[in-house]
Amino acid sequence: MSVEIRVRGYHLDVYQHVNNGRYLEFLEEARWDFMSRSGFGDSLDKAGVALVIVNINVNYRRPAVMGDVLNVTARISHIGNKSARFEQLVTLKNDDGAEVVVVDADVTFCVMDRETEKALPIEGRIRDILASGMES
Amino acid sequence: MSVEIRVRGYHLDVYQHVNNGRYLEFLEEARWDFMSRSGFGDSLDKAGVALVIVNINVNYRRPAVMGDVLNVTARISHIGNKSARFEQLVTLKNDDGAEVVVVDADVTFCVMDRETEKALPIEGRIRDILASGMES
Amino acid sequence: MSVEIRVRGYHLDVYQHVNNGRYLEFLEEARWDFMSRSGFGDSLDKAGVALVIVNINVNYRRPAVMGDVLNVTARISHIGNKSARFEQLVTLKNDDGAEVVVVDADVTFCVMDRETEKALPIEGRIRDILASGMES
Amino acid sequence: MSVEIRVRGYHLDVYQHVNNGRYLEFLEEARWDFMSRSGFGDSLDKAGVALVIVNINVNYRRPAVMGDVLNVTARISHIGNKSARFEQLVTLKNDDGAEVVVVDADVTFCVMDRETEKALPIEGRIRDILASGMES
Repeated sequence: MSVEIRVRGYHLDVYQHVNNGRYLEFLEEARWDFMSRSGFGDSLDKAGVALVIVNINVNYRRPAVMGDVLNVTARISHIGNKSARFEQLVTLKNDDGAEVVVVDADVTFCVMDRETEKALPIEGRIRDILASGMES
Repeated sequence: MSVEIRVRGYHLDVYQHVNNGRYLEFLEEARWDFMSRSGFGDSLDKAGVALVIVNINVNYRRPAVMGDVLNVTARISHIGNKSARFEQLVTLKNDDGAEVVVVDADVTFCVMDRETEKALPIEGRIRDILASGMES
Repeated sequence: MSVEIRVRGYHLDVYQHVNNGRYLEFLEEARWDFMSRSGFGDSLDKAGVALVIVNINVNYRRPAVMGDVLNVTARISHIGNKSARFEQLVTLKNDDGAEVVVVDADVTFCVMDRETEKALPIEGRIRDILASGMES
Repeated sequence: MSVEIRVRGYHLDVYQHVNNGRYLEFLEEARWDFMSRSGFGDSLDKAGVALVIVNINVNYRRPAVMGDVLNVTARISHIGNKSARFEQLVTLKNDDGAEVVVVDADVTFCVMDRETEKALPIEGRIRDILASGMES
């Protein structure tokens, strides 16, 4: 799943490129979109849990400039016993029409019980919900 | 009361000036600083009320650029029966050392009862608290 | 013309409502969209001019919360001799399906010659371009 | 070197914690402060080069909430042949007065020639400038 974002004047910074921090909003936008459209967010709500981000590792591959049309993806790429991971890509079409990577990011999260605010092991129903996010 | 903000690369936009929207964060920063340092915020908390902004009228007088050192003020300028107003200034020192206005803003707010979430008339204790903010 | 924006977790602030400053980005997004889709921005570029915002007067009518789907409009509402104005609305559909206003704003701008960086009188070709924006 | 940032209402998101993306602005603020106060930025300007961020790896250790006073550091931690790294910490004092880590981040950058916009090997004068940033 992906969202499309057009680069506007307020996304840029002193270098006339999209600012490093702004990409984290673009990535978050794609995750909310994924959570909402896939039903993934509803399933987590019903299970009484929330995702808590513990690490973001983001590569800035090439700059994006005013007017660029960015495609931002989100999918679950890895499920461990204590944490899981989104893999996200920001791409644009270059002048030859080829899709090139602007930013890629691994976003690692734990699953927290909303009542106790404690991290839960990723097993059973929780694991099934996360696994469903690998296919979208 | 005022806060000092240095213009950084991430405050700018495609025009290489501080972005219009970013100034609203600068103004909010000065209001939080005022609320916290004057004891004004504590008094409102104890009275069980919160301020709700209903209008911001902001003039952009001249651009601010990378490296500028901005001074951002906040004070209560007007108290009516149903609403009151902050007057806020963003200034910088020009090359001659004169303080010049970058942005000025009137920020109008109502006072809301936190329990009922209804707007309150500005009278009695509430009026006294707001009046104390005119002097700082 | 209008853009649709879904309220996400990162748009909210301590009050769990969309932050005052964030609306200015929503309004700017709608203006860029208008400039780009109507051909209005291209016409201004060709005429060698840029719009410079001198005042924003924004009313916050009701809060927007997580998950709300906002509609943000932009159109030229007034053309004077020295400045002109966008009128912009942020609306959402309430539970009865009625479109209700969240924010309305008047955004006043001058027209600047890009080479001399001086404000121009709004006449002739410039006036025609702005007038075309009243109809979209 | 470090900057102090007080957590305000507009820094928070739906979880009432400082938003993940906002920390990247806090980290950038500390880097600009470091560049400006240490003379490091001037030296880079004179050498005709700019830093280009290629990776940010950020750990979110514990949440920061309204009113927290954050300390944000920046120092050069590693210099390689093609890239170098800032190590940055965001800390706060807990109720026992102990400094605890909220966020830590490695920020990897290349050095770009401003004219050719090509990455340069990190050697000679450039290496000396970066090395001076390890001591501050």
